[in-house]
Amino acid sequence: MPSDIAKRREVINFAEKFALFSEQWQPKVVAELNDYQFKIVRITGDFVWHDHPETDEAFIVLDGELRIDLRDRSVVLGPGEMFVVPKGTEHKPFARQEVKMLLIEPRGTLNTGHEGGERTAKNDVWI
Amino acid sequence: MPSDIAKRREVINFAEKFALFSEQWQPKVVAELNDYQFKIVRITGDFVWHDHPETDEAFIVLDGELRIDLRDRSVVLGPGEMFVVPKGTEHKPFARQEVKMLLIEPRGTLNTGHEGGERTAKNDVWI
Repeated sequence: MPSDIAKRREVINFAEKFALFSEQWQPKVVAELNDYQFKIVRITGDFVWHDHPETDEAFIVLDGELRIDLRDRSVVLGPGEMFVVPKGTEHKPFARQEVKMLLIEPRGTLNTGHEGGERTAKNDVWI
Repeated sequence: MPSDIAKRREVINFAEKFALFSEQWQPKVVAELNDYQFKIVRITGDFVWHDHPETDEAFIVLDGELRIDLRDRSVVLGPGEMFVVPKGTEHKPFARQEVKMLLIEPRGTLNTGHEGGERTAKNDVWI
């Protein structure tokens, strides 16, 4: 949790926030909406198959081309596009080149769902 | 509610959705995330003062410059910027020229809060 409510009373500029870090696969919280969080993340390459049994997960691409593999198909998103992975749906994000994107999901949602493992990012990291 | 779950299983392209309508101040739902909705809206000019006593409200500007007047200050957002109006905080959006933006808020949230009046848009309209 942010120590200051001010965090969510400021205008958030995504480009400025992205300029503050370069590491990939480490979502950073930029805002909260009730008990939901807006997280920005940079990714390249492949992730692990996982799902979120208790929640949908929204992806909005800001830069680059994101592929989300589902078990029965793949979807591809460019800048200005969004996709909601329904809860309980296994998915695997992939980016050939770096993608900058925004995730919206309930506070406490882990990037690997309940899969765990070395790809699990520290949760609730604000920037 | 959409009649088809497919609505939220498709990739949403904001520009394509905006091309489907020109009216202003009439939010259109493009996706749902659990019991939250993503709505796109075009606005120009002034709105009415209102608040949402039960929920925060997120604004993401896609095109144009949005000013949100609060009782103690104003914030200005351009493309690629977001702001969360905390619940119970009176606010009034304003746009000198047309703004295209994305709202994220719980299903059932009215654009005028509990103020009512002629500016109240039909709720839960999908596009």
